[in-house]
Amino acid sequence: MDTYNQIPKILSFVLCVLAFAQVKAQEQKGPQMTPEMTEFWDHKVPIISPGEITENAAMTAPSDALVLFDGKDLSKWESVKGGPAKWIVENGVFTVNKGTGDIQTIEKFNDFQLHIEWKVPENITGKSQFRGNSGIYLQGRYELQVLDNYNNPTYSNGQAGSIYKQTPPLKNAMRAPGEWNVYDIIYTAPRFKEDKTLFSPGRVTVIHNGVVIQNNTQIKGHTPFTGLPKYTYHEKGSIKLQDHGDPSEPISYRNIWIREL
Amino acid sequence: MDTYNQIPKILSFVLCVLAFAQVKAQEQKGPQMTPEMTEFWDHKVPIISPGEITENAAMTAPSDALVLFDGKDLSKWESVKGGPAKWIVENGVFTVNKGTGDIQTIEKFNDFQLHIEWKVPENITGKSQFRGNSGIYLQGRYELQVLDNYNNPTYSNGQAGSIYKQTPPLKNAMRAPGEWNVYDIIYTAPRFKEDKTLFSPGRVTVIHNGVVIQNNTQIKGHTPFTGLPKYTYHEKGSIKLQDHGDPSEPISYRNIWIREL
Amino acid sequence: MDTYNQIPKILSFVLCVLAFAQVKAQEQKGPQMTPEMTEFWDHKVPIISPGEITENAAMTAPSDALVLFDGKDLSKWESVKGGPAKWIVENGVFTVNKGTGDIQTIEKFNDFQLHIEWKVPENITGKSQFRGNSGIYLQGRYELQVLDNYNNPTYSNGQAGSIYKQTPPLKNAMRAPGEWNVYDIIYTAPRFKEDKTLFSPGRVTVIHNGVVIQNNTQIKGHTPFTGLPKYTYHEKGSIKLQDHGDPSEPISYRNIWIREL
Amino acid sequence: MDTYNQIPKILSFVLCVLAFAQVKAQEQKGPQMTPEMTEFWDHKVPIISPGEITENAAMTAPSDALVLFDGKDLSKWESVKGGPAKWIVENGVFTVNKGTGDIQTIEKFNDFQLHIEWKVPENITGKSQFRGNSGIYLQGRYELQVLDNYNNPTYSNGQAGSIYKQTPPLKNAMRAPGEWNVYDIIYTAPRFKEDKTLFSPGRVTVIHNGVVIQNNTQIKGHTPFTGLPKYTYHEKGSIKLQDHGDPSEPISYRNIWIREL
Repeated sequence: MDTYNQIPKILSFVLCVLAFAQVKAQEQKGPQMTPEMTEFWDHKVPIISPGEITENAAMTAPSDALVLFDGKDLSKWESVKGGPAKWIVENGVFTVNKGTGDIQTIEKFNDFQLHIEWKVPENITGKSQFRGNSGIYLQGRYELQVLDNYNNPTYSNGQAGSIYKQTPPLKNAMRAPGEWNVYDIIYTAPRFKEDKTLFSPGRVTVIHNGVVIQNNTQIKGHTPFTGLPKYTYHEKGSIKLQDHGDPSEPISYRNIWIREL
Repeated sequence: MDTYNQIPKILSFVLCVLAFAQVKAQEQKGPQMTPEMTEFWDHKVPIISPGEITENAAMTAPSDALVLFDGKDLSKWESVKGGPAKWIVENGVFTVNKGTGDIQTIEKFNDFQLHIEWKVPENITGKSQFRGNSGIYLQGRYELQVLDNYNNPTYSNGQAGSIYKQTPPLKNAMRAPGEWNVYDIIYTAPRFKEDKTLFSPGRVTVIHNGVVIQNNTQIKGHTPFTGLPKYTYHEKGSIKLQDHGDPSEPISYRNIWIREL
Repeated sequence: MDTYNQIPKILSFVLCVLAFAQVKAQEQKGPQMTPEMTEFWDHKVPIISPGEITENAAMTAPSDALVLFDGKDLSKWESVKGGPAKWIVENGVFTVNKGTGDIQTIEKFNDFQLHIEWKVPENITGKSQFRGNSGIYLQGRYELQVLDNYNNPTYSNGQAGSIYKQTPPLKNAMRAPGEWNVYDIIYTAPRFKEDKTLFSPGRVTVIHNGVVIQNNTQIKGHTPFTGLPKYTYHEKGSIKLQDHGDPSEPISYRNIWIREL
Repeated sequence: MDTYNQIPKILSFVLCVLAFAQVKAQEQKGPQMTPEMTEFWDHKVPIISPGEITENAAMTAPSDALVLFDGKDLSKWESVKGGPAKWIVENGVFTVNKGTGDIQTIEKFNDFQLHIEWKVPENITGKSQFRGNSGIYLQGRYELQVLDNYNNPTYSNGQAGSIYKQTPPLKNAMRAPGEWNVYDIIYTAPRFKEDKTLFSPGRVTVIHNGVVIQNNTQIKGHTPFTGLPKYTYHEKGSIKLQDHGDPSEPISYRNIWIREL
């Protein structure tokens, strides 16, 4: 287990060496940023318990929604590498198939309401970012973090429900491994001017297990592992799910539907 | 039943006579507005079916919520006229007690997430605004309409889920009489400047039975029956529920909780 | 002069009769609004003196501006009725040519910074709205009022610098008849969604003779004489100047330039 | 002169060594950011010529403005170190007195319109950030850059008219050394919630020599030399002017007035 603790340190060291090495090549600009520079470690997100639900409680999609996964197949999805999505469908849920890459919806969207449920295995192991890591990329670009943060601290702007490397969730409303988490997402896409510069930033509200954790949060740009968020012109985009490839057991999804707003 | 159809006409006639009569007294300003002048009849809100839920599906309040009604008593509420709330508690729900007046929370709030469920009786009668009319007043001032609009057309900015006389809901996601409707409300209070003029208007997102029907809607001011919305300085405010007093059977509420944001 | 005082009364009477007459034809909706119903008479805008300028002080357009009037001709303008603009150019200024109709720029714009100067004759007569009335329509739709309000009270949301029938100016910074007034206008156009409904409202900042009188004001829709503002889908639009046709002496303009933002 | 070119390189090297050295002490978080990491070098701000003004053109303050400097004394200012402001008043202008520290207004403000004029000496020397560097700190915290960028390139989010290390100006509308530059600033202060977290960010519009260079720009937080902008709760604040202490000739200010909005 201690290996997990060491990974950030080793990573930091390697990256600083790399950064240092880049100085010659980029003297005008100085050293480059490292991933740790955009992690918030000081802010602690309060942990709460979401409401308890009756067993087998479920709600189907509204009649005007597009069902993106109905428990049967991945026909609405494709691999980001091209070709059909190769994640594993079983028992009404689908699970990350490590190494097959991210998957995304074939249809593209602008503003939307998205309902999506996700679960990490009951026997999950790993720590910090290496424990059930995945992500929901709004319009393929803006990552809403998926991670098991039930009794698993990490940097606050990288925990479940954060806009990755930007804005921590207001509360940690995680259910335990083996239980289903629900995200209800209300998303307003950024708008661009005729000259393709930003007109208005994206905005997102996220309700996690019934609890508002992002309240009309302004998205600052894309959500890179290293460096600062930036906006680049784009049109409609897919919902993309991340095959993060960390050593922990893989994450599953179910009951996904979307309504354009 | 035709009586209900006639009411608007009669009302219009009376009001116009009144308006006309006021001209003498208020010559500088001309005739006064009537309630019909702020009704939107042209816009039709699309009707959809919300998701179907499993029987007895329920979710309790999150651990950081203040439960405003737990099925037992109205101890968190008071009559707007003063004194204890006199609505009727029975079988885990409470019901409007006509003529006893509006009730409001004793505690006052600024920004919040509010969960509230409401139901009209299965045998409801009446038409348009005279059929299960009540209302949820955010901070005691800004009415989110409660009305039975299942197969019951009315002006769009007066139907269930509208910000009354301002903004129609995006969709009509009503459940049938006898079934419970759910509002999940995310509210940002207006802010005022030191001189008590408006700094930023209120904003509200409403999810009706799982469907976004108000998407970060800007509130234009208070929600009067007659005339234009205006903002007047205020501080924190109660959640107020309306005893509308129309001739139809009374409305019931249950499972109410609030989280300050 | 008393005639001017009587006009509103007479107008009110006529309009109320008309409104009353319409009840039969439109019983479902009741009486129609009259223009007076959207006038704000209670709010008084504070009067201040703008800074004094040295004689013959002037500034030419920035190098990246499009000069809409350089003192010589109206080649950048056209009549709204079609054909060339027929207003009168003389001594480096142009003046409303009553009855020839509004004029508008041939080029159309989205977001912009607009500099424009206007003057009412030194010997102007008339009262309230009947004294040097014109208007600058942003994108041909949203009227920034032009009127002589130097010692001439009117309803506050109809005075110089108001977004007509919507938002009064913060201050009355008028120069006296015969002196030039300057408007520096920073305008953000509304945006519409793919389905042509409103995405974000227009916004405008107006600096009148060096004084901020509209501070990033949200535009509520078009600016009708009667009724409520509404948004209707549009693309880029012209700058339109109003030939109001009131009995007072006509207004003049000069030194007009625009920069797209 | 070449020395100026070398300074950034030397600075970068030293800072990277320092950053590297900090790794041991702060292993959990990796290397610290350096100032260069928040400089934007790729984006080039278009250079334009502002309008030409007639000689001796001037405008006094509006009647409702508070005059912060009338050409005579610094009685409205104090040293940030405490005690009276020690900058030099001569011929109706005041000039940075190097080493005496920043000065700030005694009065504090919330939202405002600020008019301020500044000039670098005709014989200015130095390059990039080392040429007439000063700054106007809105509410004592948010720096609007003052720098001679007439034929003097630097990183775009550090040039005259930038919100320092945040947002470059839309255009470079500089007048030449020896000529007066004018900033007209419309500022909306950030608002905070009861718990002192941010409610709404600050916003600023800047007009430089008649040209809009910041158009209702959202301020991202304070404006540090190193690291990312953050918001910390504050109330009203002063206008602060920077004694930057670079080796170039000092900058002068005149004709400063403010109007609370």
